[in-house]
Amino acid sequence: MSKKNKTKLRIIPLGGLEQIGMNITAFEYGDSIVVVDCGLAFPEDDMLGIDLVIPDISYLKDNIDRVKGFFITHGHEDHIGALPYVLKEVNVPIYATKLTMGIIEHKLEEHGLKKTTKRKVVKFGSVINAGAFRVEFIKTNHSIQDAAALAIYSPVGTVVHTGDFKVDYTPVYGDAIDLQRFAEIGKKGVLAMMCDSTNAERPGFTASEKTVGKAIDAIFSDHPEKRIFIATFASNVDRVQQIINSAHKYGRKVAVEGRSMVNIIATASELGYLKIPDKTLISTDELKNYPDKKIVLITTGSQGESMAALSRMANGAHKKVQIKPNDTVVFSSHPIPGNEKAVGNVINELYRKGAEVIFQDVHVSGHACAEEIKLIYSLVKPKYAIPAHGEYKHLKAQESIVKSLGYDSKHIFILSSGEILEFDENEKAKKNGHVKTGAVMVDGLGVGDVGNIVLRDRQHLAEDGIIIVVMTLDKEDGRLLAGPDIVSRGFVYVRGSEDMMEDARRILQNTLLDLEERHVTDWGKIKNDVRGALSDFVWKETGRRPMIIPVIEEV
Amino acid sequence: MSKKNKTKLRIIPLGGLEQIGMNITAFEYGDSIVVVDCGLAFPEDDMLGIDLVIPDISYLKDNIDRVKGFFITHGHEDHIGALPYVLKEVNVPIYATKLTMGIIEHKLEEHGLKKTTKRKVVKFGSVINAGAFRVEFIKTNHSIQDAAALAIYSPVGTVVHTGDFKVDYTPVYGDAIDLQRFAEIGKKGVLAMMCDSTNAERPGFTASEKTVGKAIDAIFSDHPEKRIFIATFASNVDRVQQIINSAHKYGRKVAVEGRSMVNIIATASELGYLKIPDKTLISTDELKNYPDKKIVLITTGSQGESMAALSRMANGAHKKVQIKPNDTVVFSSHPIPGNEKAVGNVINELYRKGAEVIFQDVHVSGHACAEEIKLIYSLVKPKYAIPAHGEYKHLKAQESIVKSLGYDSKHIFILSSGEILEFDENEKAKKNGHVKTGAVMVDGLGVGDVGNIVLRDRQHLAEDGIIIVVMTLDKEDGRLLAGPDIVSRGFVYVRGSEDMMEDARRILQNTLLDLEERHVTDWGKIKNDVRGALSDFVWKETGRRPMIIPVIEEV
Repeated sequence: MSKKNKTKLRIIPLGGLEQIGMNITAFEYGDSIVVVDCGLAFPEDDMLGIDLVIPDISYLKDNIDRVKGFFITHGHEDHIGALPYVLKEVNVPIYATKLTMGIIEHKLEEHGLKKTTKRKVVKFGSVINAGAFRVEFIKTNHSIQDAAALAIYSPVGTVVHTGDFKVDYTPVYGDAIDLQRFAEIGKKGVLAMMCDSTNAERPGFTASEKTVGKAIDAIFSDHPEKRIFIATFASNVDRVQQIINSAHKYGRKVAVEGRSMVNIIATASELGYLKIPDKTLISTDELKNYPDKKIVLITTGSQGESMAALSRMANGAHKKVQIKPNDTVVFSSHPIPGNEKAVGNVINELYRKGAEVIFQDVHVSGHACAEEIKLIYSLVKPKYAIPAHGEYKHLKAQESIVKSLGYDSKHIFILSSGEILEFDENEKAKKNGHVKTGAVMVDGLGVGDVGNIVLRDRQHLAEDGIIIVVMTLDKEDGRLLAGPDIVSRGFVYVRGSEDMMEDARRILQNTLLDLEERHVTDWGKIKNDVRGALSDFVWKETGRRPMIIPVIEEV
Repeated sequence: MSKKNKTKLRIIPLGGLEQIGMNITAFEYGDSIVVVDCGLAFPEDDMLGIDLVIPDISYLKDNIDRVKGFFITHGHEDHIGALPYVLKEVNVPIYATKLTMGIIEHKLEEHGLKKTTKRKVVKFGSVINAGAFRVEFIKTNHSIQDAAALAIYSPVGTVVHTGDFKVDYTPVYGDAIDLQRFAEIGKKGVLAMMCDSTNAERPGFTASEKTVGKAIDAIFSDHPEKRIFIATFASNVDRVQQIINSAHKYGRKVAVEGRSMVNIIATASELGYLKIPDKTLISTDELKNYPDKKIVLITTGSQGESMAALSRMANGAHKKVQIKPNDTVVFSSHPIPGNEKAVGNVINELYRKGAEVIFQDVHVSGHACAEEIKLIYSLVKPKYAIPAHGEYKHLKAQESIVKSLGYDSKHIFILSSGEILEFDENEKAKKNGHVKTGAVMVDGLGVGDVGNIVLRDRQHLAEDGIIIVVMTLDKEDGRLLAGPDIVSRGFVYVRGSEDMMEDARRILQNTLLDLEERHVTDWGKIKNDVRGALSDFVWKETGRRPMIIPVIEEV
């Protein structure tokens, strides 16, 4: 590194900009790099068969000697989910608050990484020394407890990273966001702020989590005789707490369905973030011992995920729970964009089974709306604004909020993943180059072995299926010894298309006969001709373009 | 048919209930059947590679001698789109209003069916005699002009079918919905009403189409120097009219992109439903001759459809139009459920190209909200309510609206596709059996040749790809003459996985050697063992379950 670069602060988002998910940002000064968050993304619709997506962290691997640690803002998958994969290559300490660390540890255990990973639980207000940096954890509110903003102190100046946040003056558990500390740090001078953009398009304020508690309580009060199901996000411990509070108040037992919900409730209770009165929790098997009016079931599946507990109940595919007309099912959630249809399908199925379904006004967001974004900027007053956490349209929406506060374009930076934003000792900022970034797809056990070629093939197979043509040729003279045999999958219903397949075979036989007469023994040419003849025929007959794979066996 | 059945009115929805799309309902009395609408549905997410879905009309084919005609409420695809397919099997006359018929004729021409199809253009207020039925067309409002409700008079009583409708007191073109006629028919006594449920979940009234005109005009007024793009539904002729009006007022030329938009504008202008001032329309090629401030481009793609004009512009893949920072792009539409993500992606791309994007408050729905549904029930006062046009949750929402008007459960029927609702001469209603219905998938030229087996294979191929194992065996003794050769697609990136594929080949060779030693010549057993061995190996290595196809050539 040149001496000049040594005195510069560089912010390098390795993911998470221009998308929801895969949040990870490197802060670099001299021989020190600190990394904020290490999240995964869920696959896009065109990533067929992919389980999840993690960031390409080549840059961290290449600079591993300088990486001081991961500083995690909160325990959501889009902020911690890539840790088990990334730690295998970049094994540095993790810093996080208590509940966040509890959730991370559960993950590390599953991947057999707990013993080999250094971890430090951080209290709000504590400052971690990390090479040239000091990192302070600041209390915020979000749809999971123990969420933190970070103040990252560097020799060039202070950067505030809000993490995902909202302003909740009346949180269910613990303190409200530490607005005084934001103000105090701001007063001392802040170079830049990276701020949550998720809800920047929405005007006003996000309501307090407590308002949901009231709505849930009202549902209990209005449905004294019914069995109540409530689907919500597993990680929203405050939501679960409020459901349990209402259950206790109305004398109901609580059962929990869905692996992630069971896990998080265990972790949160163990660490004291969730208070469950004695004898309130029962197992799903025990439900049958209680009348409907004495039961609440908290479940996963609020996003219509096909394998989640609620979807299986709705489809009659759940082993232990059947939906019936005396059930009231509450969606304490909003569909995440892209899930609307799946959620709608589950609602339809629940109605069809006779249940009452409540899916409006039983949820609040965990992200700051426009007025909260204005508030945090007005407290911190950073010199530079860096809209973070959101698709491009969300970043643009934050940009226009920030402009409304008087910032000019030169003091707002919308970054792309991999872009380097550099600050010199005079607090001048400029974009200066790129590092390698990207999305690494995880499919089963494979990390990165599925790329664009494989996805393109899957897309092609999904659209029109495949036809395989097998023929055995004489190694010497190219004579047809067996075949051509045609096998298809995902193309047409074979039993109903025997004539067409017979015609196809005849056409290929003629093609091969013709090649044989011309003494062609170039396997490549033979495959090409077979593919061409079959493709033309199939297109004429069906208007489709299945993948065609000719295979030659030579004897 | 028994004599008893002859005196009964039967309503049989052949599609369109419990879903959006594929609207088609048969009304039957004695030897007469009239059919209302004949729509298609767009494929669900799991119908991989399917272009569109049409209803199974076996029941009409089996009773073709009794079918008197198709009575079409309006020109949207979910009400007319299956006609070209169905007419090939059930060639009966079509009755529709002028614009609706114009759109249908365009379709019939494309399918070479115009000459062989009897058509009658119907005026509002006219009554068509159709066997035992008389059918009256009543003016309504919707997001396409010339939409009709139908009063279907039978010896047992009158059924009103609202079609898709809203109440627009100040429509852009033509008359408001004929509320007086609804009242008049209601006053004489109506047996049953099938009523649009699409917006039944929404309280209040749907705003007039004219409010959108004002919003569009304000955008023109606020952006005097910018090039303006407006994406909307092709069939919303009134919307297009209002855009053209504003363009004319502000001295801009109008270009049109997207095949469906071009077609509908041609049909609507020709029939007098769209008034375009002289010299207003220009071709897309002429855009370059005008400054930005003199241009409006109306385009398809408001739903984020990947092949539509706007998406291609956003992705930089449009041949004639490039998005640039001086562009304002207006989405005069709401995303249809399921399209939210695709629309969001297009908006992100437009922002990235520097355009301003406006996507809120420039659209109104074409469907009646709760208060309009109450209004139409209060005018028609049917004895029985049959919520129609919607998913199950929409039908349930209409049911609860109808209950709020004082109807009891016995007078509300939520039907499934294929269910027969029967009315006797004493106006008693009951569900009485089923007819065969279903979804027929259209893929390319194939109608119905792709079914669940093919779809399941496509799903499997899409998830994990395919491995083909080819081997040539001696016909006599099962000796391995060539292979095993392994070909994969959509499974792993082959170049990066050569070792694994080599291991797989070795395992299969051992399997085959073992079978050879045991003199196994049962091809089925050999295939099974090959599949099993490879499947185990691949699962262990990758955690995936690709489709495995063993192919044996015998020589």
